[in-house]
Amino acid sequence: MLSKDKYSACAEFSPEALKKVIRGAHPEDSVVSIGTHAIGGGVLGVIAGPCAVENEKQIIAIAKTVKAAGASFLRGGAFKLRTNPYSFQGIGSKGIKLLAAAKKETGLPLVSEITEIRQFEYFDGIDIIQVGARNMQNFSLLKELGKCGKPVLLKRGLASTVTELLMAAEYIMDGGNVNVILCERGLRTFETFSRSTLDIAAVPWLKQRTHLPVIVDPSHAAGDASLIPAVAKAAVAAGADGLMIEVHNDPEHALCDGEQSLTPDAFSALMIALKKYAELEGKRL
Amino acid sequence: MLSKDKYSACAEFSPEALKKVIRGAHPEDSVVSIGTHAIGGGVLGVIAGPCAVENEKQIIAIAKTVKAAGASFLRGGAFKLRTNPYSFQGIGSKGIKLLAAAKKETGLPLVSEITEIRQFEYFDGIDIIQVGARNMQNFSLLKELGKCGKPVLLKRGLASTVTELLMAAEYIMDGGNVNVILCERGLRTFETFSRSTLDIAAVPWLKQRTHLPVIVDPSHAAGDASLIPAVAKAAVAAGADGLMIEVHNDPEHALCDGEQSLTPDAFSALMIALKKYAELEGKRL
Amino acid sequence: MLSKDKYSACAEFSPEALKKVIRGAHPEDSVVSIGTHAIGGGVLGVIAGPCAVENEKQIIAIAKTVKAAGASFLRGGAFKLRTNPYSFQGIGSKGIKLLAAAKKETGLPLVSEITEIRQFEYFDGIDIIQVGARNMQNFSLLKELGKCGKPVLLKRGLASTVTELLMAAEYIMDGGNVNVILCERGLRTFETFSRSTLDIAAVPWLKQRTHLPVIVDPSHAAGDASLIPAVAKAAVAAGADGLMIEVHNDPEHALCDGEQSLTPDAFSALMIALKKYAELEGKRL
Amino acid sequence: MLSKDKYSACAEFSPEALKKVIRGAHPEDSVVSIGTHAIGGGVLGVIAGPCAVENEKQIIAIAKTVKAAGASFLRGGAFKLRTNPYSFQGIGSKGIKLLAAAKKETGLPLVSEITEIRQFEYFDGIDIIQVGARNMQNFSLLKELGKCGKPVLLKRGLASTVTELLMAAEYIMDGGNVNVILCERGLRTFETFSRSTLDIAAVPWLKQRTHLPVIVDPSHAAGDASLIPAVAKAAVAAGADGLMIEVHNDPEHALCDGEQSLTPDAFSALMIALKKYAELEGKRL
Repeated sequence: MLSKDKYSACAEFSPEALKKVIRGAHPEDSVVSIGTHAIGGGVLGVIAGPCAVENEKQIIAIAKTVKAAGASFLRGGAFKLRTNPYSFQGIGSKGIKLLAAAKKETGLPLVSEITEIRQFEYFDGIDIIQVGARNMQNFSLLKELGKCGKPVLLKRGLASTVTELLMAAEYIMDGGNVNVILCERGLRTFETFSRSTLDIAAVPWLKQRTHLPVIVDPSHAAGDASLIPAVAKAAVAAGADGLMIEVHNDPEHALCDGEQSLTPDAFSALMIALKKYAELEGKRL
Repeated sequence: MLSKDKYSACAEFSPEALKKVIRGAHPEDSVVSIGTHAIGGGVLGVIAGPCAVENEKQIIAIAKTVKAAGASFLRGGAFKLRTNPYSFQGIGSKGIKLLAAAKKETGLPLVSEITEIRQFEYFDGIDIIQVGARNMQNFSLLKELGKCGKPVLLKRGLASTVTELLMAAEYIMDGGNVNVILCERGLRTFETFSRSTLDIAAVPWLKQRTHLPVIVDPSHAAGDASLIPAVAKAAVAAGADGLMIEVHNDPEHALCDGEQSLTPDAFSALMIALKKYAELEGKRL
Repeated sequence: MLSKDKYSACAEFSPEALKKVIRGAHPEDSVVSIGTHAIGGGVLGVIAGPCAVENEKQIIAIAKTVKAAGASFLRGGAFKLRTNPYSFQGIGSKGIKLLAAAKKETGLPLVSEITEIRQFEYFDGIDIIQVGARNMQNFSLLKELGKCGKPVLLKRGLASTVTELLMAAEYIMDGGNVNVILCERGLRTFETFSRSTLDIAAVPWLKQRTHLPVIVDPSHAAGDASLIPAVAKAAVAAGADGLMIEVHNDPEHALCDGEQSLTPDAFSALMIALKKYAELEGKRL
Repeated sequence: MLSKDKYSACAEFSPEALKKVIRGAHPEDSVVSIGTHAIGGGVLGVIAGPCAVENEKQIIAIAKTVKAAGASFLRGGAFKLRTNPYSFQGIGSKGIKLLAAAKKETGLPLVSEITEIRQFEYFDGIDIIQVGARNMQNFSLLKELGKCGKPVLLKRGLASTVTELLMAAEYIMDGGNVNVILCERGLRTFETFSRSTLDIAAVPWLKQRTHLPVIVDPSHAAGDASLIPAVAKAAVAAGADGLMIEVHNDPEHALCDGEQSLTPDAFSALMIALKKYAELEGKRL
């Protein structure tokens, strides 16, 4: 007989619904490692790169640039989720191939977003699979990610509570995947000066309750390159285990998110500053 | 060469991004019809039934009850999206079969929610495929729905603007599907007395801008059975083309959403009241 | 010895904090009456008029117009709260005098907003004193209103819960004033098509919990004249005891809120429609 | 003739409405100084103390404690704004006297909140007058503060945009008062784990646009003592010119806000950490 559901409209924080993500379920902080690169466990992992992979020249130039500045992972969108059906939707599997070329050139492990189950075949060469904010509760995708054998970077939804984020991570872990990274990237609020309102207190709240690494995406939160250095430093000071930052070699002509992309120079300057903040938190970049 | 995207962070209302859903794209109000049952075009379509199909006895009893009260469509969830991974997740394809049995018994066309692309094979017997709020921007699902040959009921996301709802509908219509119903079901706000905050002004705003039928789901908005009659009447008075209402023959023991389910008696009483409001709006139930 | 406070960060619904506003505190629905005009108790009270009193000709013309259409109260702002320090701030006490002239001409009782304690001297001729959304928790003003001997129309704050609205009303009633009208006027949310998001379910929720009349301000909620008729009808269908609607004889040249002001013709047409909705709810206009 | 108002429903950022607060209006960053104590201009000003002054022993003990830890200002509420009319409302003018005693004992300049115009007579001994979030748009109070001759600490409203905060400050500056401190303290959002959602990106946004000092109140934002150190460090890293932190010698028995008050030990530890973050930002504590 089916039992009546105890968790209906509102997801209340409950250890029973968070068996595997909860702090007590793991003896210490979980670390997600790819070769010598890591996020968590005393290492501040910085993921950098363009919103979208556009062409070989672009992605390789940016990869070299962010590596030189000290980033440990390269990001780049191949399959893009776009509100407008007639917007640029990414270059798809070709983008994944170009990312692989950039990895070959720089050695940087790759982070790219999957937007549906049918794309798994293309993600063999990707090191960390990203789930975007709009897919945080795409439960069938989460279940597949639980079985995919690769680390998952799970972004918090624009209208999702931190408890719901943990429950989404639990879907992945329940499938057997222990490598999950949580990413705070801002809430949708009435305020419009920024693209969304970063929930900075979510960082310590999550760190208290889960053993999973918690990172912050200042680019999507702020939506404005001039605000990103301040928000990135704040994230590290609040205890984040990593950052995901959009960098573009030519923001003005970027095919998406140009206004929130740092130039290589701005990114390098930021990395120098972040190193000192990481040290204060007992972390190395 | 790829052209730079004009619609990045914020989706601004733009006729160019809404070619097919926009009012001018169709000479008059679109109507979604299944046999003699309709939503739109002067007919107030009422979709009623339980949150989840639980067993044959339950769904057939409720189907008879809502038909007797004047509902034109039967709803019932087979595949459920649940925040908590350990919650009841619906009885799956078996639920679809039980809905078919209820249709055979009552003649009511069926509405049920699809939660991922791989479920299409089960939806042959379903008359209107529902997309839940969390999937409003599951664009790959929307694209498949554009080619599926069945009417689609598209619910607005909890943190989605009305413009984003229209753009999601455009994804479906762009695939060739002209039968799309829009459903307002509330926004996530700071207020907690209700499950979400119904955006009543979205009804006239949408009716001004699109030819598609616009319905309201007072059950998920209010999340409390005692508030639903008032909200349902308000929706009709605001110009909605239909309603989707959760009804359960035994709300106290419902496997989900019991607290927001009307009893058959409460639903019958509401339908009598709604008839008069529909008449004032020049619609028939 | 001071006792520790039980109600700190969040205001939870508690009958102990709502001694006088709670339904059980009064045998039946409270009615606020001014002569033969009333709000509540089976009478749908309609308050209409301009955002701001501009000059004698304007206010008298509008007063005649709204009276002819069936409004029972005239509204008009003399002291205006404006976000921008360099905006038009109302014509002050002169506006109150012009309202008195309009009352003399039409017999309509007056509703006008007080924005600070020092203005009480000017409000002798005003029948119902309005508290704006920004002053809902101006507790010293509320305490004075508790002793002022005049009915008070209390608007819900843009970020206030319904429980906080009831507690604000309790401040007034605790001072001895039994004539309080609650007004729902919309929440500030991420959605921008409307000025704010009307919380329609607040109407039945409040009616269940308090004996006070509950009215709706569709003008400030929608912020767009074309949406107001639908929202006004919805409010009546949801059980509101009254409406406050902005009407201007020349919206295009109104000194404030022109875009959300109905023309006299639009208001007359709306009143005809509202009469039928009121009847369905067992109320007379 | 009155001119039509250009700034109605929404307050758009406009230099014309922000004549005196805008960055260009002042050659460099404004500094608010009381004797040798300062906020802004390379000094990180820390204001610490209890939510409410309770008695002499309490406020003097806390004052000594926060001074020893390095705070530059003592805060304490005498007149409290409380949602619940039957809650503890502060000890009023007696509280102001006790603050003066604490200043005599420690030399710390005083910060206390004014909640209405009639209280000015009590504020002679207060060095910086605080305006709470609920009074951010109490324009008559702001106008009086413009003429009061004392520095003003203006908190952002729970549902106010940063532009509206600047316009509120403009009201004060327009009266001739050049000493205004802006305070970010969190927005009301759907998220409930924290009391409100701190808008960390508001700090760099404001610093770019105004010459006024910008501080952060992590206590009211987080509402939970365990989250405050992380949020306070983040605020400094984001560029804040100061912090306002609630400290209580006995949080468990505090008459209000106990759950968000740091113990003296926790505050001392935090100050040691903050010193290093301030140094990274080129500021001294």
